[in-house]
Amino acid sequence: MTSFRVGVIGGGQLARMMTPPAINLGIELRVLAETEGSSAQLAASQVGDYTQLEVVRSFAATVDVITFDHEHVPLSILEALESEGVSVQPPSRALQFAQNKLKMRERLGALGLPMPDWAEIHDADSLDAFIEAHGGIAILKTPIGGYDGKGVRVVASAADAADWLSAEGLARVGGHLLVEEKVSFTRELAQLSARTPSGEFRAWPLVQTTQQGGVCAEVLAPAPDASEATLELAAEIARGVAEGLGVTGVMAVEMFETTDGRLLINELAMRPHNSGHFSIEGSVTSQFEQHLRAVLDLPLGSTLATGAHAVMVNLLGVDSENDFLPYYAAAQSAHPEAKIHTYGKQARAGRKMGHVTVVSGNSEWALAEARATAKILRNE
Amino acid sequence: MTSFRVGVIGGGQLARMMTPPAINLGIELRVLAETEGSSAQLAASQVGDYTQLEVVRSFAATVDVITFDHEHVPLSILEALESEGVSVQPPSRALQFAQNKLKMRERLGALGLPMPDWAEIHDADSLDAFIEAHGGIAILKTPIGGYDGKGVRVVASAADAADWLSAEGLARVGGHLLVEEKVSFTRELAQLSARTPSGEFRAWPLVQTTQQGGVCAEVLAPAPDASEATLELAAEIARGVAEGLGVTGVMAVEMFETTDGRLLINELAMRPHNSGHFSIEGSVTSQFEQHLRAVLDLPLGSTLATGAHAVMVNLLGVDSENDFLPYYAAAQSAHPEAKIHTYGKQARAGRKMGHVTVVSGNSEWALAEARATAKILRNE
Repeated sequence: MTSFRVGVIGGGQLARMMTPPAINLGIELRVLAETEGSSAQLAASQVGDYTQLEVVRSFAATVDVITFDHEHVPLSILEALESEGVSVQPPSRALQFAQNKLKMRERLGALGLPMPDWAEIHDADSLDAFIEAHGGIAILKTPIGGYDGKGVRVVASAADAADWLSAEGLARVGGHLLVEEKVSFTRELAQLSARTPSGEFRAWPLVQTTQQGGVCAEVLAPAPDASEATLELAAEIARGVAEGLGVTGVMAVEMFETTDGRLLINELAMRPHNSGHFSIEGSVTSQFEQHLRAVLDLPLGSTLATGAHAVMVNLLGVDSENDFLPYYAAAQSAHPEAKIHTYGKQARAGRKMGHVTVVSGNSEWALAEARATAKILRNE
Repeated sequence: MTSFRVGVIGGGQLARMMTPPAINLGIELRVLAETEGSSAQLAASQVGDYTQLEVVRSFAATVDVITFDHEHVPLSILEALESEGVSVQPPSRALQFAQNKLKMRERLGALGLPMPDWAEIHDADSLDAFIEAHGGIAILKTPIGGYDGKGVRVVASAADAADWLSAEGLARVGGHLLVEEKVSFTRELAQLSARTPSGEFRAWPLVQTTQQGGVCAEVLAPAPDASEATLELAAEIARGVAEGLGVTGVMAVEMFETTDGRLLINELAMRPHNSGHFSIEGSVTSQFEQHLRAVLDLPLGSTLATGAHAVMVNLLGVDSENDFLPYYAAAQSAHPEAKIHTYGKQARAGRKMGHVTVVSGNSEWALAEARATAKILRNE
């Protein structure tokens, strides 16, 4: 054997963060990046358009398995490669559910997995009827193409979504919209797990996530004050999703914990996820190492925590100038235990440009340190 | 600021292992490798001969600071670059002591630091006199060019080193040999530390090392049953060496613990070192991250342990075939907590090709697991 070779489509920070464990494990990582100078440029072996079959096919010929930095590669391309014998992980039959939230809801329903009430919507009348039946408010989603709060809208009537419900609006999303009940939740949780093509499954401890403007802001691992029953239920839900949808590699299941104590599936990500960045330092096996092992169908690593608590705070861009590097010295001097990560991206307000993780026996101290470090880096 | 840019001369596993923390911290790492396909090839921006001033000068022009994978760059080249304003870390005035063990012994003596008795030798008579005065046995070393047991010989008389003492032999090593007393030691220890150009100094916990055939085989962190006084003394010795010799970046001080409880300095390495590989998982800040921070004169990170015990076992090559990859699945399946590292090197018997680290609250378990993982990978 000369090496294990993993090909990642997409050159964002997730591909970037797969590079360190690939180096450690002696895995050859190759990235098909969208542009020169991508976040994952060190491992970028090719720059090209992932919507072109020929581009993806020639990239696939250089590796043992294809996996993803994002979920946007057209299914038709992946199906073509699979029919030619290429190992695609997660496979197209799983990714279809990540690419289309209506398909995802239908499948989760067939599996009996817990989620908010939902309906497929084609017009204003059916939307208004759903809203009326669910307390006068609902969450409207475009079934395809949404992420980080994009493609999601809170609506009190169909008039709030006239643009999406217009003939042009509906045409853009395949003729359907997804409406979901607005869940009364106490907090948002995420269950990270990994599954191999051979069927091995491992889950990390459940985490609590905090969103700001639809974007992940903070993660507490493990989720504070979660009961044993909740931890087990969350892991079982993740296993149900992974097995039921045929997911391989790392998957994040974002959930609501409701005021009456239930867990309801909100979103799925079939790849390493922002809610799992804590695992780089906070787990014996990080989500990025685990993803590489999983897609290669190697045995999975331990998901035990390295410390009692890990806190991750995202570094969102402040403006078009501050890339955080000028504030490294001040942040590192004040917080020698903080693990600073930046993704080599051009600065832009609100952009996910890095994160800070602190692992500690004291959760309050870890949160305070991580926040304080981020504050210095953001020059606040 | 666009980035921090660190240039490493030498493309071995130490440069390779600097790559993950460089990616995490958003530091641009560039490597001047000896050959194509080096261990650090992912970060190799240039291939060239580090003994040619023009090659090193053009490489230095692409980075903010020059540092090293090894200690073999000619001092004249580094002095020339320094006179041109290039930041070289550690600087030539420190590296001279790493390149010449006689100079190192002289300087340590002037600083009053503890070490074995030693003498500079030019002929058989002076060697025999030293041996006779030190119990009939001594350690003879070539002052330059030795590593991993090479350039070191146990001698009972000058006749055991006739080749080194010949006119040709002496000419090869600059006319001098170093002889040292053969210390009665209970064990070997290593003190890892880092120092910045601004003078910040941090030490990791003292570790115990085991050598096989002059090559590091196992490391236990922290050193078992070391007293507080020993831990403090070892750190103070390292501080004395770093400050006294003007060392910057990571440094390893290899020491003997004598049967009468003293610590004596054996060897110095002015770079990340095999005895510090445990720190990748076993410390809040790994030696590779710390080295990057130190040479950039950024504040140093916490050297606290992530777990009570870390054990590192080297993966030495078995033959020209086994690169360990065919045994990953068996090793990972049996030992999901073991961190396997391989360096992408061609297999060769005895070659340092990788290592395994296990962090645990139980030191015996960690040692057994790390050894068992290595055994599977070596197909034993």
